[in-house]
Amino acid sequence: MPSDSPNPALLPAGLSDLLPPDAAREAALVEAMLAVFAAHGYERVKPPLLEFEEGLLAGSGAAVAEQTFRLMDPVSQRMMGLRADMTPQVARLAATRLRGVERPLRLSYSGQVLRVRGSQIAPERQLPQAGIELIGVDCAAADAEVALVGVEALARVGVENVALDITLPAMSPALLDAAGLTGEARQALARALDRKDAAAVTALAEQAGPPAVYLPGLLAGAGPADAALAALEAAALPPQARAIADNAKAVIAAIRARAPDLRITLDPVEFRGLRYHTGVAYTIFGPGRTGEMARGGRYMSGEEPATGLTLYPDAVLRAAPRRAGAARVFLPAGADPAAGAALRAKGFVTVQALSQDDDPRRLRCSHILRGQEAVPFDGAAAPVSGKD
Amino acid sequence: MPSDSPNPALLPAGLSDLLPPDAAREAALVEAMLAVFAAHGYERVKPPLLEFEEGLLAGSGAAVAEQTFRLMDPVSQRMMGLRADMTPQVARLAATRLRGVERPLRLSYSGQVLRVRGSQIAPERQLPQAGIELIGVDCAAADAEVALVGVEALARVGVENVALDITLPAMSPALLDAAGLTGEARQALARALDRKDAAAVTALAEQAGPPAVYLPGLLAGAGPADAALAALEAAALPPQARAIADNAKAVIAAIRARAPDLRITLDPVEFRGLRYHTGVAYTIFGPGRTGEMARGGRYMSGEEPATGLTLYPDAVLRAAPRRAGAARVFLPAGADPAAGAALRAKGFVTVQALSQDDDPRRLRCSHILRGQEAVPFDGAAAPVSGKD
Repeated sequence: MPSDSPNPALLPAGLSDLLPPDAAREAALVEAMLAVFAAHGYERVKPPLLEFEEGLLAGSGAAVAEQTFRLMDPVSQRMMGLRADMTPQVARLAATRLRGVERPLRLSYSGQVLRVRGSQIAPERQLPQAGIELIGVDCAAADAEVALVGVEALARVGVENVALDITLPAMSPALLDAAGLTGEARQALARALDRKDAAAVTALAEQAGPPAVYLPGLLAGAGPADAALAALEAAALPPQARAIADNAKAVIAAIRARAPDLRITLDPVEFRGLRYHTGVAYTIFGPGRTGEMARGGRYMSGEEPATGLTLYPDAVLRAAPRRAGAARVFLPAGADPAAGAALRAKGFVTVQALSQDDDPRRLRCSHILRGQEAVPFDGAAAPVSGKD
Repeated sequence: MPSDSPNPALLPAGLSDLLPPDAAREAALVEAMLAVFAAHGYERVKPPLLEFEEGLLAGSGAAVAEQTFRLMDPVSQRMMGLRADMTPQVARLAATRLRGVERPLRLSYSGQVLRVRGSQIAPERQLPQAGIELIGVDCAAADAEVALVGVEALARVGVENVALDITLPAMSPALLDAAGLTGEARQALARALDRKDAAAVTALAEQAGPPAVYLPGLLAGAGPADAALAALEAAALPPQARAIADNAKAVIAAIRARAPDLRITLDPVEFRGLRYHTGVAYTIFGPGRTGEMARGGRYMSGEEPATGLTLYPDAVLRAAPRRAGAARVFLPAGADPAAGAALRAKGFVTVQALSQDDDPRRLRCSHILRGQEAVPFDGAAAPVSGKD
């Protein structure tokens, strides 16, 4: 669809329109991914866009408190938030209306979230989300299921050859705890890990003594999962860190058992990102430079152990292959309505002329109805969208 | 899915969660209706939930100004509105980014709208909308197309035997204008028409003299379209009113030509409802007492003539027949993953056991995997949702 470039003053920064054909593509992608979730037993819920802020910002919602728009509810005179993330809403549902449902509880959702400010690299303030939560169970098989259902959903919409990047957000804190590091020494080492500054990590870890001395090796081991697991295996980790490593090994083994060809990386000391994760956390990257398609991991859903994954349909839209749209067939004024209906039943799009002025070429039709048949229109082949 | 009744303090009044299976049903209904729109050449757009208020409240948006939540944009320091209706957003798109696209322009949309206050009969403050707009053309064929595409979309999701109620919001004002009625006399007659108070309309119209004297007859003629058209035909209407009547006749004829069995009523003097309509307006009622499924009609989309229809997916959800959900098949721990994938490809839902504690009956499975087959599970037949 030919279109002019947007007037930047027309919409607030970070808010935008999705035009044809992208709006239809995004909706189709989301429904195809939700169908994969449904096939694995994840049942859809639809929480509202607005909630009282205390509910919205509880638990994992605290991580997006600063990013949440607030509104006064004129009915109750209480503050409401416009959701910036859907996971806290699903946790609320699981803990209240669905608390009597047998665990493990599998839920799925899709919807829009809003954020007060965008960042330079992610200026959008309205983002679509689609996701799953597996609530009430804490085992490697659950973490593996959620990651693999996400990978399958992406494959269903044509995003293949993804990479699963696993991190263990509790590992570095466990090692720093075991080393008895506090205050400035701890912060300096944490910052060096955060920057992946191997020289600084090595120097600071040597000062700190065991078990922080294993941090440089674990930092260097980040990469393909097998090498990283070997580095974890080789380190004489303190008990809490060992348990985290063993769990990572079990999750990766459970994933490998079902998806032997999936590219998996492991960064044992990475601990950025959402601070509420309690076990493995993961990011699914699309092929090439398409970036992050999804993020997830283990967390506490209220009082219950849970693991979940949020897919980013805007990123999936950019990464997914474009499929050719249906042929547009021009129906001249006075055409037999049954002929149009028959074409639509076959998957054609029909465009009914409303007057003699309607022109098949200018209405971007590739075919025209002749008798009961759609025949290619000579002057056709204008693109369906100027955005393509 | 068994669930407890909601805690009323949990969510603000008029905001609610949609639980399984309704959330999935609503999404499926919306996508099925949007597929009908797409087949008729309506291309999907997705405007953002928030916009600057001047854009959102322009044109037909003025009708929902009082119902629109406002927020300060911290980036621009300008006021934004949380949309209470999507039609003004589509009008903005048509007038700006899509102004260079050939007319008639056919657009479709679906999304959530929010309202500051609910009413006693419609307490919801978040409502789904799905609709179409046919922009840049003013003819009976366009009004007929939009109404019939709406009827077809409802039929696609199982809502059949609908009734199309047509009103002519400009008719009464045209008759009152032609009678030279102003001030108190005009308001009294308008109020009597609004209440459908035949005795008062008769008394006031007699006082007012011609052409208001035809109002009682037109009021009495409201009902099946043929009788109402005959009443209009019989009245010696002033020119502006005659043009409105002739247009209604043409629209009804265009609808009849394609849908001879559709039940159509016409109320020529009704003028309540959305005040921005400039030609025929219509409401589609579901069968029995299922109520309003959609509203639409002719209006001005910025500077352009347009006709549009908004369907109410929440009402459609209540009216549409429930279809049996897919059978849920329990996959015991250690089951062959390929067997589960084969079942999902056949349309089954599979639920993977994550431990030996997982129980097929409590997880609401009707079948269990034995070898490569889904066999009915004896202890099964628990309902998929406690809401059913």
